[in-house]
Amino acid sequence: MKTQYECIPCLVRQASEAIALLIEDEQERERLMRRLLGEIASSDWRGSPPAVAQRMHRIIREATKNKDPYNSIKHDMNRIAACMMPRMRGMLKKSENPGELAVRLAIAGNLLDSGAKTQISKEDLPKCLDKLLAQPLHGDAKALFREAGRAGNILYLADNAGEIYFDRLLLEMLPADKITFAVRGGPVVNDATMEDANEAKIPEIVHVISNGSDAPGTILDDTSPEFRLCFGKADLIIAKGQGNYETLAGRGKKTCFMLTVKCPAIAQNIGEPVGSMVVKL
Amino acid sequence: MKTQYECIPCLVRQASEAIALLIEDEQERERLMRRLLGEIASSDWRGSPPAVAQRMHRIIREATKNKDPYNSIKHDMNRIAACMMPRMRGMLKKSENPGELAVRLAIAGNLLDSGAKTQISKEDLPKCLDKLLAQPLHGDAKALFREAGRAGNILYLADNAGEIYFDRLLLEMLPADKITFAVRGGPVVNDATMEDANEAKIPEIVHVISNGSDAPGTILDDTSPEFRLCFGKADLIIAKGQGNYETLAGRGKKTCFMLTVKCPAIAQNIGEPVGSMVVKL
Repeated sequence: MKTQYECIPCLVRQASEAIALLIEDEQERERLMRRLLGEIASSDWRGSPPAVAQRMHRIIREATKNKDPYNSIKHDMNRIAACMMPRMRGMLKKSENPGELAVRLAIAGNLLDSGAKTQISKEDLPKCLDKLLAQPLHGDAKALFREAGRAGNILYLADNAGEIYFDRLLLEMLPADKITFAVRGGPVVNDATMEDANEAKIPEIVHVISNGSDAPGTILDDTSPEFRLCFGKADLIIAKGQGNYETLAGRGKKTCFMLTVKCPAIAQNIGEPVGSMVVKL
Repeated sequence: MKTQYECIPCLVRQASEAIALLIEDEQERERLMRRLLGEIASSDWRGSPPAVAQRMHRIIREATKNKDPYNSIKHDMNRIAACMMPRMRGMLKKSENPGELAVRLAIAGNLLDSGAKTQISKEDLPKCLDKLLAQPLHGDAKALFREAGRAGNILYLADNAGEIYFDRLLLEMLPADKITFAVRGGPVVNDATMEDANEAKIPEIVHVISNGSDAPGTILDDTSPEFRLCFGKADLIIAKGQGNYETLAGRGKKTCFMLTVKCPAIAQNIGEPVGSMVVKL
């Protein structure tokens, strides 16, 4: 997906939220906001929104002299998700359709994406989770398991910290020996990196690699040769979140996208309404 | 109020909404969005948000070769408001405290401000109005009537089209002979101009003037000598909406601000939470 003019307010909002979180001095805040506006105005919009966001967050990290400004938020998200695990395992045990529930949970895990987008308090999370799980699932969860059974190599692309605990529950139901789990190659917003994968103990279940890139999505040209090899070999990609959708949709590779639709541009592209939970091959 | 970095996402969102509404060609949309981003990034933020918005909307009118791009929206807002008048007059007739209700209605009229900000359908309006009227009013409506009684000259600053029908109900309860009602000097977004004042038959009740400026607020230096004379002579200013608050708060003139608080920056400045209806001297 290319960057559209409708994506710009959202990118600017992300810039503003990052500034509010990371900078205290009013003049520095203004200076950085002006610089980011200029960067967005002059960047190549033929690229996807995560490509613009990648450059934006590099500038933010440089300006704050902080290589991982969302580190403590990511730890919080992991901690909150870890606390929710027993409850979710209990739900899966009681479920008549644990496969579909695991898919729903993996998508709902995105609600922890509080750092940059939604602002849900820790106390409200169980209620929000129940509300999300009561929503219809757009797409066919069974098809994911069917395709995963058929595939020789599966590449699972993670999205955020915290959320990867929810991914773990789904990974436990998929053929683990065929799966490579990929995280971002460097810190960008609250996206999951190797540190988060280790915290969630994902390497105990599946092989985990870094994608070598600090984009909040999967920009193939920007990833490492090792990742591209894995991507090329995979018969099935499981791609979590909007960032991976924006960078990989329409790439001609068999991909199962799992995401909550958060904006009209994605809604129009994927053909499902804003707010819906989608699993789509 | 000066423009803060937190105001920028909102200004960019307004730019995007104007582009969505007024331009069809994708390339033109992108070109204008880049131009507006550059304008915001390079503008003087010591000015108020309406000062930045004024320049932005001049560029939009120039790019669309349309001197009044929101004209049909304003007519729609006036038409919808006109349809609601009998219902509101009925409410006022039955009310035990018609003065406070008229103040509430005048503030609630801002909910018609659908062009650039909220998106409420015509069908949902009566329900939204009831919900708004059930909210607590922050501030003292009685003080407005007391000060209006004492004042020799009152200047009432209008906000949006549609909303001025609601203002009319309040004007009918105030000492009309002392009031001058001012509208914007030229079209800007859906703000009320002389055309709207005439449509709402405001000149039948009070003296109406244009402020000579196309800013979505009241930037005194940008207004006409006639308006500034009125402003100087007034013992009481009644200022509707956020734009007038952003440009006039802290000016040392006795002013009664009437608005719905729509953003955290205003909330912090005025000391009332987002979403609240405020009447404040």
